[in-house]
Amino acid sequence: MTAYDIIMKKRRGSELSQEEIEWITTGFVSGDIPDYQMSALLMAICFNGMTPEETSALTTAMINSGDTYSPSKELGKICIDKHSTGGIGDKTTLIVAPICAACGVYVPKMSGRGLGHTGGTIDKLEAIPGLRTSLTHSEFISVTREAGFAISGQTGSLVPADKKIYALRNATATVDSIPLICSSIMSKKLATGADGIVLDVKVGDGAFMKNYDDAEKLAEAMIRVGKLAGKKCTAVLTNMEKPLGMAVGNAVEVVEAIEALKGSCPEDLYEISLTLASEMLAIAGLGSPEKCRALAIDTLSSGKALKALEKMVKLQGGDAKAFYDYSLLGVPTHTREVVSERDGYISGISCEKTGLVSLGLGAGRKVKGGNIDPTAGIIFNKTVGDFVKKGELLGKLVTSSNCDIDAAEKDFKDLFHFSDTAREKAQSVIKIIRS
Amino acid sequence: MTAYDIIMKKRRGSELSQEEIEWITTGFVSGDIPDYQMSALLMAICFNGMTPEETSALTTAMINSGDTYSPSKELGKICIDKHSTGGIGDKTTLIVAPICAACGVYVPKMSGRGLGHTGGTIDKLEAIPGLRTSLTHSEFISVTREAGFAISGQTGSLVPADKKIYALRNATATVDSIPLICSSIMSKKLATGADGIVLDVKVGDGAFMKNYDDAEKLAEAMIRVGKLAGKKCTAVLTNMEKPLGMAVGNAVEVVEAIEALKGSCPEDLYEISLTLASEMLAIAGLGSPEKCRALAIDTLSSGKALKALEKMVKLQGGDAKAFYDYSLLGVPTHTREVVSERDGYISGISCEKTGLVSLGLGAGRKVKGGNIDPTAGIIFNKTVGDFVKKGELLGKLVTSSNCDIDAAEKDFKDLFHFSDTAREKAQSVIKIIRS
Repeated sequence: MTAYDIIMKKRRGSELSQEEIEWITTGFVSGDIPDYQMSALLMAICFNGMTPEETSALTTAMINSGDTYSPSKELGKICIDKHSTGGIGDKTTLIVAPICAACGVYVPKMSGRGLGHTGGTIDKLEAIPGLRTSLTHSEFISVTREAGFAISGQTGSLVPADKKIYALRNATATVDSIPLICSSIMSKKLATGADGIVLDVKVGDGAFMKNYDDAEKLAEAMIRVGKLAGKKCTAVLTNMEKPLGMAVGNAVEVVEAIEALKGSCPEDLYEISLTLASEMLAIAGLGSPEKCRALAIDTLSSGKALKALEKMVKLQGGDAKAFYDYSLLGVPTHTREVVSERDGYISGISCEKTGLVSLGLGAGRKVKGGNIDPTAGIIFNKTVGDFVKKGELLGKLVTSSNCDIDAAEKDFKDLFHFSDTAREKAQSVIKIIRS
Repeated sequence: MTAYDIIMKKRRGSELSQEEIEWITTGFVSGDIPDYQMSALLMAICFNGMTPEETSALTTAMINSGDTYSPSKELGKICIDKHSTGGIGDKTTLIVAPICAACGVYVPKMSGRGLGHTGGTIDKLEAIPGLRTSLTHSEFISVTREAGFAISGQTGSLVPADKKIYALRNATATVDSIPLICSSIMSKKLATGADGIVLDVKVGDGAFMKNYDDAEKLAEAMIRVGKLAGKKCTAVLTNMEKPLGMAVGNAVEVVEAIEALKGSCPEDLYEISLTLASEMLAIAGLGSPEKCRALAIDTLSSGKALKALEKMVKLQGGDAKAFYDYSLLGVPTHTREVVSERDGYISGISCEKTGLVSLGLGAGRKVKGGNIDPTAGIIFNKTVGDFVKKGELLGKLVTSSNCDIDAAEKDFKDLFHFSDTAREKAQSVIKIIRS
C-alpha cells in the first residue's frame, strides 16, 4: 500500500477500501505520510467525493486516533448529544440541554470555542463569573449525574486526527467538502460516545452551508455515518438567513437564553429550541416527537429547565446570582442605540455581516487564541417582518473594547433591508430528517 | 494575494491571472509557499485544467526561476531544438541532430538522463568510451559551432522550479496533467533558448500518452505555449505501440543509430527520423517540409550526417573508433538468443513491457541516481508484421549485469503477439501539427 496509489485511486474516482483509508489516516497522524500527500488526497476528495462507506471508514479512523468515551456506561443511563454546524446568535444549547436534563435525559456535552463571528458555547458560558469549562473527566461525569447535563471544553486527545486534518484543509482550500465536513463533525460526536445525536444543520447566508441542497446532503451524510456506527441520529435543517433570536454576542446571548428559560423567547429561537429538544427526547426513547414536544413545552413553562441550568452553572463554579442580576455578567462600557432612518417593513437582516459587526465590537476572535470581550455584542430591537418607523430603535450595540463604534453603527444600519409591504416570514425549521 | 485564495480559485474552476501564477511559483521555489499548498493546487489543476494563457504564465514563471540561454545570439545563427516525450528504443536524436548539423542548422541540445525503462540520450551517448556529457557552457557552444550540434546534460540552474514541482507531482499522483506536462517540457525547451522546436509526441502503450486524443491535446498545448513565447514549433505524433527500431538499451541503440547513419535503418526509425529532421530544417527556414525531406535524405545517404556525429563525439572526448569497431562500446558478458515457439505473423510487441525487460537486464535505472549497464539491452530479430517460423530467432538479450536472464527470456517471449494472417502495419508518423 502506498500513499501515491491511494491518491491516484481517489483521483481516478474509485472507491478507497477501509484498509486504505485507515492506513493513510493513521500514517498522517503519526507523521509517516507527509502533509503534501494528504493535501493532494484531500483535494481529490473535494472533486470526487466519498461514498458513505468511505466517509464512515474515515470517521472511524479519525476516532481511533485519540481517546473515546462511553458516558452512558459510566452513568448507567442513555446519553444524548446535540451538534450545531454553527450560526449567528445560536444559543440553543443553553436552552435545549436544560430542557432535556429536566426531562431526565442526560446531555454530557463537549463543546468547542468559536473562531470568527461570535464565541462558541464555551465562550458564551464563560461570560458567567466563576464558571469553569475545563472540567476533568470525572467532574464532567459528576456534573452530568447531578444536573442532568454538563458543558465542557474538548480535551487535547479527542480526535487528534481531526485537528491535524482540519488545519491542513484550512490552509489548502479543502474545507467545504461534504464528506470531510461530515467526518470532522461525526468523529468528534462519536468519540464522545452519546447514544443518540441531534444535528442542527444551519442553512443560509449566515451558515457554513449557504444553500438547502448542500445542507441536506451534509445532513444525510452525517445520519448515514451515525447509523453505520449504530447510533440514532436526527438532523434538523434550520434557517440561518437571519441571526437567531435577538441577541448576538456572549453575555447578551446568555441573557437571552435565561430569558427564554424564564418564558420570554423570540419566536424563531423558541421554535428551533423546542424542535431540537423534542427530537433529542424522542431518540432518548421518551415517545413520539409530538409527545416529546408537549413534554418539552411543559418542562420549559414549569421553570424546571431554568432550575437545571442554574444547577449546572453552580456545579461548574459559576455565580448563579447572575440569573437574576444580569449586571453580574459585566456591564459594557459603551452602548450605542441605533435608530431607523426610514419607515418600512424589515424584509431581511444580512446574517453573515451581522457576525462581522459583532466581531468588530469584540464578541469574537479575529485570530486563534485571541481574546473575547464577553460584554460585546448586538441586541436587536426589531427583526425580520417587523414594521419600523423612522427614528424608532433598531437595536443596541454594546462593547467594552476599544473599537470604532461609529463604523459599527454604519455597518449595523446596512444590515437591514426594507420593503414597503409585509411579507410572509421564512420558516425557522426547514426540515427534519430522522434515521 | 494568498495561496489559499489561489488554490480556491483554481478549485472553483476560474482562470488564474499571470500575477497569481508567477507569485505562487516563485514563492514555492523560494520555500515561502509550503509543499502542501502547492500539491493541493496541482491536484486542483489536474481536475480543472489550465487555459493556454495560464499554461503559458506557468511556463514563464518556471523559466524565470533559473538561468536562460540564447545560443543563437552567441553563435550568430538560428538554432533548432528537438524534444521527445519519451519512448522505448528512441534513439532519434542521434540520427536527427547529425542530419540537421550536416545541413548547416545548429542543434545545441540539452538532454536529460532517463529514469525507468532505458537510459536517456545522455546515458546512451555515455556508452561511447571517453565521451563527456557534462560540458561547460562555453564547451557546449564551441562544440555546436564546430560540429553543428552538441549534446550536454542539463545544468542545475536550468528551471529549478521544474525539478521541485516535478518531485512533488511524482509524490502526489499529479504527473499526468496536460498543462503540467506541457509547462514542464516547454519551460526547459524555452529556457535553453532555441529559435524553433520540433516536438516528437509519442502515442501508445510504450509512451506516456497512451491514447491519441491526449497526445494531440498535449501537442497542441505545447505549440500554443511555444507560439506565445514567439517560437516556431511543430509537433509530430509518432507511434509507440511497438518499440522504435530493433534495439532497446544503451550501447545497442548507439550501434543502431550509427548503422542508420551508415545507411541501414529499420523502416519505422527511418520514417520518424526523416520526418523530425525535415520539420527541423523547415522551421530553420531551409524551405518547405517536402524540400527539406529531400535534403535530409541526400545528407543521410551522402554520409555527411555520419561525419557530423563522429565530429561531435570526438569534440566531446569520445572514442570515434567505436563507430567502426562496436566491441569498443563494451561486450556483454551474457547473451541469450531467444527463438519462437510457434509459427505465425507477429501482430504486436508489448511496448511498455519491453521497457521492463530492458530495465531488468540492467539498461535502465530502478532508482534515481542508480547505475546503468551500458552493454545491457534487447536486439530484436523480428518485428511487427514479420512472419516467424517455430525455432527461428526472435531476438537476443544482452547484459553484463547480475540479473535473472531466464526470467527475462520468459518475459521477452511474452512480449510477442501472433496472428495467423498478415495485417497492415501501423503508420509510424501519425500526424504533423505545425504552428
